[in-house]
Amino acid sequence: MSKGQAIGVFDSGIGGLTVLAALRRRLPGERFVYFGDTARVPYGIKSTMTIRRYSRQNAAFLSRFDPKLVCVACNTSTAAGLDVVAEAVRVPVVGVVEPGARRAAETCRGGPIGIIGTESTIASRSYYRAIRAILPKAELWEKACPLFVPLVEEGRLADDPLVMAAVREYLSPILGRVASLVLGCTHYPLLRPALAEVLGPEVTLVDSAEEAASEVARVLEAEGLLASEGDGTVTCYVSDNPERFRSIGQRFMGVSLRDVTLVEPEEFFAEGRSGAFRESPS
Amino acid sequence: MSKGQAIGVFDSGIGGLTVLAALRRRLPGERFVYFGDTARVPYGIKSTMTIRRYSRQNAAFLSRFDPKLVCVACNTSTAAGLDVVAEAVRVPVVGVVEPGARRAAETCRGGPIGIIGTESTIASRSYYRAIRAILPKAELWEKACPLFVPLVEEGRLADDPLVMAAVREYLSPILGRVASLVLGCTHYPLLRPALAEVLGPEVTLVDSAEEAASEVARVLEAEGLLASEGDGTVTCYVSDNPERFRSIGQRFMGVSLRDVTLVEPEEFFAEGRSGAFRESPS
Repeated sequence: MSKGQAIGVFDSGIGGLTVLAALRRRLPGERFVYFGDTARVPYGIKSTMTIRRYSRQNAAFLSRFDPKLVCVACNTSTAAGLDVVAEAVRVPVVGVVEPGARRAAETCRGGPIGIIGTESTIASRSYYRAIRAILPKAELWEKACPLFVPLVEEGRLADDPLVMAAVREYLSPILGRVASLVLGCTHYPLLRPALAEVLGPEVTLVDSAEEAASEVARVLEAEGLLASEGDGTVTCYVSDNPERFRSIGQRFMGVSLRDVTLVEPEEFFAEGRSGAFRESPS
Repeated sequence: MSKGQAIGVFDSGIGGLTVLAALRRRLPGERFVYFGDTARVPYGIKSTMTIRRYSRQNAAFLSRFDPKLVCVACNTSTAAGLDVVAEAVRVPVVGVVEPGARRAAETCRGGPIGIIGTESTIASRSYYRAIRAILPKAELWEKACPLFVPLVEEGRLADDPLVMAAVREYLSPILGRVASLVLGCTHYPLLRPALAEVLGPEVTLVDSAEEAASEVARVLEAEGLLASEGDGTVTCYVSDNPERFRSIGQRFMGVSLRDVTLVEPEEFFAEGRSGAFRESPS
């Protein structure tokens, strides 16, 4: 392996761009290849078996770019198991649950911790177990918030009455009861202002993205694989709708996404059969 | 073809069960085979190209049951084009847009018509064109309501504050301005009480399901293919999560769904390659 190899990143769609943005800030000299599975998004309402199959296919796609590390920038995929990703890529794999759990444990000051995520992530209890592994006696409260992803994808952020109504309803049982709240879905950092307004300034909002980016940096440094110089790049691939990815993605990254390519689906889905795939410009 | 053959029905997931329920009421003696593509739901945020590919695969799956007719119980699939379905099954195909447009034209009493649906259905302008073909001077108003599907899938119906807030916000521009409203998505009939409360009793809510069921009956009668006797049956197949389909599906059908089978995905997605598929009990 060499320092010049890319870092692969995948997500069910657009949400993982919050992680990619943190990776870019932390590691500005790296080459990133991002895959968003927009043809099958969202993952959060699907079964663990199906999410694992999708993760394996996404990882197989990224392996074609010979990455030095793969970051699973999707809580639902991470919660469904990183083992299928590791098998497919055979390089170090970093997910978002362990880093998020560590950050939560560090910032909760011994107080109760709330965890919010998709149906599938919450049902998996991955954050619960990861935090309990660090703080065996931590008081934890979990809640699936299925409307947050469609609200963000529709472009509704702070100051939107529907966002505020949804945040108030999902979080009402923990108002005044938690010291920190884990944002267990990569879409949720975009709701940070609304969450902060409802929960108040004393609650720490824990975003896995920054901690996952630090973990990626640590792993690469330990392996002697940090890119030493040069300007980094971002290349994006999606399984559907590059136009929608570009326009919504801008909200997630804060900058415009120019290099977005549609992957030819028949070949992508053939992973595990012929092993071949083609790409086509969007 | 014979009267004893099944009627095939497909949808992106669960919503089409509102159409299946109408078909069952209208044609209680028929055998129905329903396919819900729960591994790739929702379709409404995806590109026309991808929706057409999924429709073709779903139709190819149903063709294995040798149906006498296929009903596309999904507005998004219908709007993306029934030609791919007709090519795959080579039997009569009935969608939901034309019947819904006809019902809207019949019930609007010359007044303005509202059309609501998913992002993709509204962007396709299928209802707009279908209604204009009948009433060239009709005043039409179109609006995508992306939150309605996740609200219904989460089990939020009438009396839910988030449903009421979303309905009020999406429909505020047409309050007092339309004579009828087309529910251009099979999930929306479950929001009928909330829509009626906000719009008032003078607005007719147009549901494609009943009219589509009548169209299916008309086509079968014209072909001499109406099942003449016997008790009808419903067999369901899904591409993911039969448990979630059963539990949410009950809200759509009003009765419990017992016969739900998971389709082996590797074989389903291989359509167009080997042409073969296997099923496995869930």
